[in-house]
Amino acid sequence: MNGKTTISQRWLSTMSHFKNHVSPSLTPTIKQWLNRTLEPGSQGAVSGHVKSVRQMKSIQFVDISDGSSPNLLLVVIKKNADDPKLDLRVGQSIHVNGQWALSKGNEQTIELKCTTTDPSSISVIGDVPDSYPMQKKSHSLQFLRTQPTLRHRTNLLSSVLRFRSFVESRFIEYYEEKGFCKVSPPIITSSDCEGAGDMFKIEAPPKGHSEIHHKQGFFGRPTFLTVSTQLHLEVLALSLNRVWTLTPCFRAENSNTNRHLSEFWMLEAEICYVDDVSQLTDFCEDMIRSVTEKIVSSNAATDIMSSRFDKEEVEAMQNRWATILSDKKWPSITYNDACELINLVMYKDEPQNRLSWGESIQTVHEKWLAGEYFRSPIFITDYPVGEKPFYMPKSKNFDREKPTVACFDLIFPEIGELIGGSLREHRYDELVAAMTSRGMNVNDMQWYLSTRENGSVPHGGFGMGFERLIAYLGAVENIKDIIPFPRSPLTCDC
Amino acid sequence: MNGKTTISQRWLSTMSHFKNHVSPSLTPTIKQWLNRTLEPGSQGAVSGHVKSVRQMKSIQFVDISDGSSPNLLLVVIKKNADDPKLDLRVGQSIHVNGQWALSKGNEQTIELKCTTTDPSSISVIGDVPDSYPMQKKSHSLQFLRTQPTLRHRTNLLSSVLRFRSFVESRFIEYYEEKGFCKVSPPIITSSDCEGAGDMFKIEAPPKGHSEIHHKQGFFGRPTFLTVSTQLHLEVLALSLNRVWTLTPCFRAENSNTNRHLSEFWMLEAEICYVDDVSQLTDFCEDMIRSVTEKIVSSNAATDIMSSRFDKEEVEAMQNRWATILSDKKWPSITYNDACELINLVMYKDEPQNRLSWGESIQTVHEKWLAGEYFRSPIFITDYPVGEKPFYMPKSKNFDREKPTVACFDLIFPEIGELIGGSLREHRYDELVAAMTSRGMNVNDMQWYLSTRENGSVPHGGFGMGFERLIAYLGAVENIKDIIPFPRSPLTCDC
Repeated sequence: MNGKTTISQRWLSTMSHFKNHVSPSLTPTIKQWLNRTLEPGSQGAVSGHVKSVRQMKSIQFVDISDGSSPNLLLVVIKKNADDPKLDLRVGQSIHVNGQWALSKGNEQTIELKCTTTDPSSISVIGDVPDSYPMQKKSHSLQFLRTQPTLRHRTNLLSSVLRFRSFVESRFIEYYEEKGFCKVSPPIITSSDCEGAGDMFKIEAPPKGHSEIHHKQGFFGRPTFLTVSTQLHLEVLALSLNRVWTLTPCFRAENSNTNRHLSEFWMLEAEICYVDDVSQLTDFCEDMIRSVTEKIVSSNAATDIMSSRFDKEEVEAMQNRWATILSDKKWPSITYNDACELINLVMYKDEPQNRLSWGESIQTVHEKWLAGEYFRSPIFITDYPVGEKPFYMPKSKNFDREKPTVACFDLIFPEIGELIGGSLREHRYDELVAAMTSRGMNVNDMQWYLSTRENGSVPHGGFGMGFERLIAYLGAVENIKDIIPFPRSPLTCDC
Repeated sequence: MNGKTTISQRWLSTMSHFKNHVSPSLTPTIKQWLNRTLEPGSQGAVSGHVKSVRQMKSIQFVDISDGSSPNLLLVVIKKNADDPKLDLRVGQSIHVNGQWALSKGNEQTIELKCTTTDPSSISVIGDVPDSYPMQKKSHSLQFLRTQPTLRHRTNLLSSVLRFRSFVESRFIEYYEEKGFCKVSPPIITSSDCEGAGDMFKIEAPPKGHSEIHHKQGFFGRPTFLTVSTQLHLEVLALSLNRVWTLTPCFRAENSNTNRHLSEFWMLEAEICYVDDVSQLTDFCEDMIRSVTEKIVSSNAATDIMSSRFDKEEVEAMQNRWATILSDKKWPSITYNDACELINLVMYKDEPQNRLSWGESIQTVHEKWLAGEYFRSPIFITDYPVGEKPFYMPKSKNFDREKPTVACFDLIFPEIGELIGGSLREHRYDELVAAMTSRGMNVNDMQWYLSTRENGSVPHGGFGMGFERLIAYLGAVENIKDIIPFPRSPLTCDC
């Protein structure tokens, strides 16, 4: 701290008399109404979409939702025979000016009463055609994917998006508490972090702007959408100590599975002064446990649970949270030990299926290890060098015969890999040797290598597919239901 | 709420016995050390980069920083004549195992003492070449832009990134309090939101994957990087009521100014059941005031102020915060009134420069209105229809002779436009007419138009360039210094 701070602090204290006197004039949401103490008989003005209509002789029961919470509001409409006709249908947006009343039903404690005698009491704001597709109480997720602009009006998928938003906020809090700086590494890049080659290429605008039609394109060189922001995060970690990001990443792989997206959000972190993989695995375990604890003790838990009609689905979700919050520390085993377990236990009677050293541990093995053998999230560390990218240093117990690197995957029951991380080789010569031996162009990566020449420090980090985590925590099978407009091969409809 | 919730809540209470027993084993940062109560004589292990070295006969004073805060830690090294040689230089990363002691200097209250007699007491982790460019105490921002991998090691630019991170967290809190859902609209899109045409095109991977070399590319149609997520946000608002996002956006414009980036982050929000522009302007004012209040009462304020050497720069920053937190509500004037002020006051003696109705209000006019005339952030509402995109409805006081739309820009002193927003035309026929009259392809936008056929509701929203806000709040002139790796025409170096 220096002298200026004192002046600044004096100035800051003079600012305390400023008061925010703007009251935003948004109308309350249904959630906000229901969180208030409502006096029966008092007035309420509410808008929302019609979810169901039950017609009696002189009375109509209408459930409406505005998407602010899973809770429906029951509107009770009194009709006299000579009232203006009001044809209410599922999907319409309506506005109700009514009176709060205690509800007689089980499902809510308060309802809104109005009457068609008074035309200002209830009105249709937005109509729907007869073909409005969201009629049934419960549509299949597969059907909902064919309704990209309407599917989030369902209780299930709106809950998933609110849940995702809630979880994201908890990560923000977690990283702020731990002294991390959230950074915004670039999406457009000229480097291929993983060396996998499955990158989307970016082109100059198709027309006009002739002066920027440089022969190497808009940026003067070939540019791509990032597959991982790790290399840029490393640069920033060396300046800011601990950095993280939650940012879109892109893979031009031709996979159309329930675990892959062409565009997804990745949570990545890089931490300086880390020289042991267990520091990273401990950090990841603490992070996911902390966020899950906040979920379990929040309304977000009841919100997402109440979006499921099926009791078994709710229990499956609860079991997943309980698995994370297990009393036992999550097991950590090496690749070598994992192979031994797979070969001796999983493939006890199938010697033909056993893994040789260096072979990949497949998703089926991962699910067996975490889901059946350990029944816990597990870390697998120290994979063979040939299985992993160039930037990982040798394992502490390096074995020339079976060379491994200082890395880990976090494996979850039912879904497999959730996080991949490692120490990063922080020594210049070793890093250049690893790149050269893989035939990489060292010149193109000079900017990255320069960090190893200018006050390099041991560091490590990891990346977590954010949709995969939400899918696990929210017990959703297909990550296309976690992101509002999923992108995959041949799918970019709107 | 329904019966399941009760079961769930019962289950949730049984989860309370789970305790997180993982203690992450990261070593404390300098910020974390300095926030503790340190007993003089107790041991401290600290790593960081050397910022300055002052050499005395038998003692050396070394300032180190690890980027966790603007505060330097003073390391005092005792040397005996026959100790192993230790050549400390600016830029090296070092590790110190020493003893805390009360400092005699003014600039900090505690220092770390060590000695070269004990080789485990202080060591160089990462060396620097003689050419290490970050020697001087204060480099120009222009020079720093030539050092993309090292520039965030300066006090100024690391403070800017920490400040950005802090402000982002406050927005997360603000929107959570206001009942918004944070959503992740797509980056890859087949629609052009603004109709401006300055979009980057995305290509299928350049090699391999022949089976996905569909003649229309990877996604089966031409795809681009989004210029604004508004259209997708509107779809989601109609399901979730209030949504917002902070997401990368892209403009392939050939502008290389201090206010433009090819890749930038945009904060966008869409709010349902809004039918008056003043609801949006009140919301924006409340949002920026609330976040600024949190800045002023936080350590983030002292952090970013202490990063400036120049007292005038600190005062300029304080003046900006005071301008936002003014006791007066921010003025709101129409485009018509703005033109009248510009013509009658600014161009009182320059009739040749006066604006005719329909002409654009330029940045020079905006800066005059907000910076000189009102000395306040101001809203300009109801711009001519020809100045704005297709989705804006007519103004409330629509005048056939001078047709305007229900929109606003938020203009800040010194920087000009910060936010642009509007009501969105929510009536199908009117929206189709607007698109047709502008020669847009209605078929391509059917997904968007469908929201106006299925329970449409009045709504509105806005977009704010996040780097512009941080540049204003942090008193940084060029938004290339707000984002860690700026992208602009011919610039994508690493």
